[in-house]
Amino acid sequence: MPFPHDATLADAGEFGLISELVALFPQGEHVLVGPGDDAAVLRVRNGHVVVSTDLLVEGNHFRRDWSSAEDIGHRAAAQNLSDINAMGGRATSLTIGLAAPADLPAAWALDFARGFADECSLVGASVVGGDLTRSDKVVIAVTVLGSVTASPVLRSGARPGDTLALFGRQGWAAGGLAVLGRGFRSPKVLVDAYKRPEPPYDAGRVAAEAGATAMIDVSDGLLADAGHIASASGVAIDVHAAAFDIAEPLQAVGAALGADPLQFILGGGEDHSLLATFPDALAVPTGWLRVGTVAEGSGVTVDGAEYDGPTGWTHF
Amino acid sequence: MPFPHDATLADAGEFGLISELVALFPQGEHVLVGPGDDAAVLRVRNGHVVVSTDLLVEGNHFRRDWSSAEDIGHRAAAQNLSDINAMGGRATSLTIGLAAPADLPAAWALDFARGFADECSLVGASVVGGDLTRSDKVVIAVTVLGSVTASPVLRSGARPGDTLALFGRQGWAAGGLAVLGRGFRSPKVLVDAYKRPEPPYDAGRVAAEAGATAMIDVSDGLLADAGHIASASGVAIDVHAAAFDIAEPLQAVGAALGADPLQFILGGGEDHSLLATFPDALAVPTGWLRVGTVAEGSGVTVDGAEYDGPTGWTHF
Repeated sequence: MPFPHDATLADAGEFGLISELVALFPQGEHVLVGPGDDAAVLRVRNGHVVVSTDLLVEGNHFRRDWSSAEDIGHRAAAQNLSDINAMGGRATSLTIGLAAPADLPAAWALDFARGFADECSLVGASVVGGDLTRSDKVVIAVTVLGSVTASPVLRSGARPGDTLALFGRQGWAAGGLAVLGRGFRSPKVLVDAYKRPEPPYDAGRVAAEAGATAMIDVSDGLLADAGHIASASGVAIDVHAAAFDIAEPLQAVGAALGADPLQFILGGGEDHSLLATFPDALAVPTGWLRVGTVAEGSGVTVDGAEYDGPTGWTHF
Repeated sequence: MPFPHDATLADAGEFGLISELVALFPQGEHVLVGPGDDAAVLRVRNGHVVVSTDLLVEGNHFRRDWSSAEDIGHRAAAQNLSDINAMGGRATSLTIGLAAPADLPAAWALDFARGFADECSLVGASVVGGDLTRSDKVVIAVTVLGSVTASPVLRSGARPGDTLALFGRQGWAAGGLAVLGRGFRSPKVLVDAYKRPEPPYDAGRVAAEAGATAMIDVSDGLLADAGHIASASGVAIDVHAAAFDIAEPLQAVGAALGADPLQFILGGGEDHSLLATFPDALAVPTGWLRVGTVAEGSGVTVDGAEYDGPTGWTHF
């Protein structure tokens, strides 16, 4: 490093730090020009590019006293890669904007970048560009590009008679967040699920190939995200509470906090599990859990009735 | 509007405001799926996609008491579109992340979006996605995608013997910023140049077709950005001070502030003028001003000597 180990961003200087950061990001073969010019240059084939963007704001989406820089890097990448997963696509390229206080340790930024790069390596995507600037709190802006070979799976394709199915852990991150919010650090498996979600990156393409009619990644909350499918598709969705296995750590947290553990599953986001609809129950691929049904109408119900627990996350 | 005229973001609610914002962004024919799904879907042809990202932080890159929301929208779009211009490309698609305080007037966000959309319409680019979330200060994250038909023009192609040339107003935004910083509002033409830069959007492609060997948009400062070309290309650049016409408003500000007006031109950024090198003086297209020469060596000089004024912007 061209700056001392305990340097701040101000000590390290923008250009010194950027060259250290860039060195952490290997470039795929499709990247003709990586970070360092006015823009990156990517080779694309005829077809469709999918693109999505997300902001993470310190104190709102993450806390530096709860999560390590590396955890936050993993999570910032994961939640964006997951959006491409939910289209049935393959993520190829990302950009990162990092705004941070001048007294932030440069090591924090480097650890963040390491975590981000590690998460991207799980799907073979490259960090092709970015921006680094000053702000009072850490703000992370990520944009992800991906390719879709078949038709992308939208939120709007669910039809009456479809089966609703879920892939991946659901409610674990919410359980972990509830634990952290009360000042506890265990069950560690839930806290870890919050800090480093593990989106099922291959499940999106498998669902697309199996004929999924609609798909979304669960980031606002299972019922809230089911609601996004319902409203985009113009259908009603009924979720079956008995379909969910309530994992032992969620039962433990429910008992400790005096809460119904089902609320973590139905209201929790940020595990980046996938929720999709399939034209019939037999089309649901292996590993997906059938959790509901699609009918004519509108809105989301649980076992036929309105749910009176928390249904998800609002940003304001 | 589904919310009162004087509503805050918190009053308007995330989803109500998003639908109002999305309505302000017309979608080009290449946009198969626009805002509202997990990701946008864009049609691309075989070739190269260029991508760039920028953050704008309140108090650092803009002040809400100096610039209207619409001005800030124009500027946020302009500085990103300019990066594609500097590659010799054509901007096609942008994403916006907006983090803002819950008590920000919803009208501010809508005016910002109007300014952003207006600037994008100058080049026919579409806003295809975004994210809206809460933060203490306004932070704007923009990513822009573009296409390049010929070879993109990088920073690294300048060769000894090349001619350095400039296209567009240069130093006006810096003059306007200096004026605002002293509490004045005139010369209005400079203040307006700061609030709403007017990047020469067609000049990048013209330069690429004319065989430009290197190109950059002036955003850090003319000498600083010449330095980026020099270091990426492994050459020395000499800038000729006498080449610049010092416009009357810059002379007036220099006299009023007791400053050499040349320092706005040499040190100023944010006009998003273009600086490029051409293999010989005759290759420089119409409208470009020849401002220097490229030689073997390294670094940037002014009339053969090190420049002792401000050379540009540092972020930390």
